Amino acid sequence: MKTWDPSIDLDRSSHVPLPLQLAHALARDIRAGRLRPGQVLPSSRQLARVLGVHRNTVVAAMDELKAQGWVESARASHLAVAAELPASSAPAGGRHADAIGFSLPARRLASRGFEAAPRGVLDFTGGLPDPRLLPASVLARAYRRALKKGGSAVLGFSDPAGHPRLRAAIAAMLRTRRGLDVAERDVLITRGSQLAHHLIGLALFERGDVVAVESPGYPSTREGFALVGARLAPVPVDRHGLDVEALARLLDRRRVRAVSVTPLVQDPTTATLSAARRLQLLDLARRHRMAVLEADYDYEFQFDGAAVQPLAASDHAGVVVYVGTLTKALGAGLRLGFVVAPSRLRDRMLEARAVVDRQGDAALELAVAELLEDGELLRHAWRARREFQRRRDVLVAALRRRLHDVVELDVPRGGLALWVRAPGVDVDAWAARALAGGVRFFTGRHYQPSGRPLRALRLGFAHLDAAELERAVEVLARTVLG
Amino acid sequence: MKTWDPSIDLDRSSHVPLPLQLAHALARDIRAGRLRPGQVLPSSRQLARVLGVHRNTVVAAMDELKAQGWVESARASHLAVAAELPASSAPAGGRHADAIGFSLPARRLASRGFEAAPRGVLDFTGGLPDPRLLPASVLARAYRRALKKGGSAVLGFSDPAGHPRLRAAIAAMLRTRRGLDVAERDVLITRGSQLAHHLIGLALFERGDVVAVESPGYPSTREGFALVGARLAPVPVDRHGLDVEALARLLDRRRVRAVSVTPLVQDPTTATLSAARRLQLLDLARRHRMAVLEADYDYEFQFDGAAVQPLAASDHAGVVVYVGTLTKALGAGLRLGFVVAPSRLRDRMLEARAVVDRQGDAALELAVAELLEDGELLRHAWRARREFQRRRDVLVAALRRRLHDVVELDVPRGGLALWVRAPGVDVDAWAARALAGGVRFFTGRHYQPSGRPLRALRLGFAHLDAAELERAVEVLARTVLG
Repeated sequence: MKTWDPSIDLDRSSHVPLPLQLAHALARDIRAGRLRPGQVLPSSRQLARVLGVHRNTVVAAMDELKAQGWVESARASHLAVAAELPASSAPAGGRHADAIGFSLPARRLASRGFEAAPRGVLDFTGGLPDPRLLPASVLARAYRRALKKGGSAVLGFSDPAGHPRLRAAIAAMLRTRRGLDVAERDVLITRGSQLAHHLIGLALFERGDVVAVESPGYPSTREGFALVGARLAPVPVDRHGLDVEALARLLDRRRVRAVSVTPLVQDPTTATLSAARRLQLLDLARRHRMAVLEADYDYEFQFDGAAVQPLAASDHAGVVVYVGTLTKALGAGLRLGFVVAPSRLRDRMLEARAVVDRQGDAALELAVAELLEDGELLRHAWRARREFQRRRDVLVAALRRRLHDVVELDVPRGGLALWVRAPGVDVDAWAARALAGGVRFFTGRHYQPSGRPLRALRLGFAHLDAAELERAVEVLARTVLG
Repeated sequence: MKTWDPSIDLDRSSHVPLPLQLAHALARDIRAGRLRPGQVLPSSRQLARVLGVHRNTVVAAMDELKAQGWVESARASHLAVAAELPASSAPAGGRHADAIGFSLPARRLASRGFEAAPRGVLDFTGGLPDPRLLPASVLARAYRRALKKGGSAVLGFSDPAGHPRLRAAIAAMLRTRRGLDVAERDVLITRGSQLAHHLIGLALFERGDVVAVESPGYPSTREGFALVGARLAPVPVDRHGLDVEALARLLDRRRVRAVSVTPLVQDPTTATLSAARRLQLLDLARRHRMAVLEADYDYEFQFDGAAVQPLAASDHAGVVVYVGTLTKALGAGLRLGFVVAPSRLRDRMLEARAVVDRQGDAALELAVAELLEDGELLRHAWRARREFQRRRDVLVAALRRRLHDVVELDVPRGGLALWVRAPGVDVDAWAARALAGGVRFFTGRHYQPSGRPLRALRLGFAHLDAAELERAVEVLARTVLG
């Protein structure tokens, strides 16, 4: 073996410090066999001279290599390559980020969705509130107080079911405003309703279990169930919500572990499940011992008439698992959801949570509990509701004025989106033209379990102001014909 | 059918508002068939008189029932029970929180763990930092700035891979301090390393895949893999870390999708994986196309000598998936972890994340990015490290002074826990006596995939100050003999 040639290229413009570069280069030479086990290395002084670096750089590199076991002390102050290194055939050179050295199952897990819209695009996707309306300073103050007063209870490990103050505040809200007979211990806090559904899926479904889902319906819910091994059975939705007769026929044929519904304002069609169907659904669930997964994401945004109560308020048989969210009142970025479930399911969900994400953000939970307790959060939601109702009315009027000959719509009783049918239009082509014109929306296809076209658009209006809505409808009108 | 008797018991001391109580009672009577479809109801004035409530209470209750479709307008100003209600046999009466009306698979999902210690107990479980050391006011100010400046970008939907500023700051830290050749796009932010492992499990494992885990090892990691359907293959750990020869023999017999390791400071034994084994492990992985899931949770808390670099820094074949955490620098309650993975796996993890919890807390991510950028977070970690080293030394000295005849220990090169072997002691009985005396710790059994006894204790010391540690060791000494 020839003598080692210590001429190493060091890149002084690199973000990697010189000692690390040098250590990597030496380790590479050891791995590649250019330095053999036991071989004594030149002194740090010699190496520094050859490489044209400060001696401290070499000393730091050698400390690193020693710590990693590549080199060890030899005679006098000299170092040698460690004697017990195995031969290695690993190729030298940095790893490229696209390199993958292991096999990966070939399957797509979910559709991702919700890519941010290009800058300047008026975006109707998602039924989200307007972050510009949130009193960020009020939240920031509450968060500071929570960090300060909460101490170890919010900065250390905490209850995976959520901060007790937030659980109590949500239980109180559910009792007084939504007719649910619940106490603090019945409420499990999650990171938005998405995590709530994931935990339900992990706790409730065994591989191959059938779960009935709305068709059209919210893609992330059903994709989350599929991810944990459930089989999806789509059930049609009409203008009175889920077709419960169709569900009954499904139940005659198959064992169904659960049905996932959005009874208040169906996502995406905005239909409200009729009273007759509510009764029928609860009755079916009870008789078939099927769980009803009720997602009630827009309760605080009912605009017309008295509030419709959740299914959970009429559940005497313990069949309903109730999922709610504060995201619509706070903003999508502050992910706080909650679940009310029979205690045996809740316990399982807590087991799952321990290995999914351990616990929530107790400081944020405590801050929001305070905003709920002093009424600030609901006052904000009500102020926002008035503004959202105005925006909805602006959008409905503009659509009727500019597109009355091509679209049909029912004004929904609540929620932050409109469902607009366009029976004579190729809506997917329309969506492409509208996007080129600066307006984005999802068409019915996005919500179909089958992925087949559906001649409707969903327009989430709450984060656009009146002027933006008028402009967006102008673009829709201009692009409806190819 | 006899005439309806509207004598309803209303509970004025209840937390449920009177109109809701009344609405529920009427709906119950309708469901129970005491009011038949189409039947005209008494006027609100009559009902108010009979029930002894204000007329507005009745009107509000009727609005609620109308909204829910239970009643509809009839002749004059009278209301009638809706005509199209189906008969229902649902029993009346409120649901008990323990009632469950659907079937649940019979299996335990995980062990939960980390129940809070009873008040006043000196707690050695968990290798966690001391929340009392965190500069909460600095974090609170950064959070306020993030909410204020971040606007829609932190309050609305954001990138599920994490805030770009935090990804860039972590990439810079990994390049300059840990020798990883990574850019912003290579880093995926998660809610602590627990969620990182869950997303890896969802993206990487197919049902029945074998994953090699350390034995003893961290329970939540392996339970998380089991939850998503992986089969666990325990591989022994000795004083040089994972027994890579044993892993090689396993690989000769079975296809192994991944091995999960803690090379820097093995959890729980605190052994550092030797340089020879590091090379061997990377080489094995490359040859068998097996992923190496490297959890590097204590990098900033190496006390003695130069820092050992992550396996990922020597990974030229793209076999390592690197998981780190800021939780040890911030506090367990602020859950921020990160993953560096080959891009194809990272894309899959992002698909999974879309349906697990959608995205992280962008405001917190931005706040912490700022603390990383200006060096505040690492300065805090280094201050804390000096304090933790003092605490470790106090604990080691106290154990050697008071328990030298029963325990053996190697002082680890880093990390926030000691692994204390007690070969002649029934440690589980000791743990029970110590808990009665006010000190809690996990024994070796807690970390064993088999659940079998193991004569060792793990003492997480970082969140106890010197006086608390001295007191705790006194209790250990007093309780070691039954």
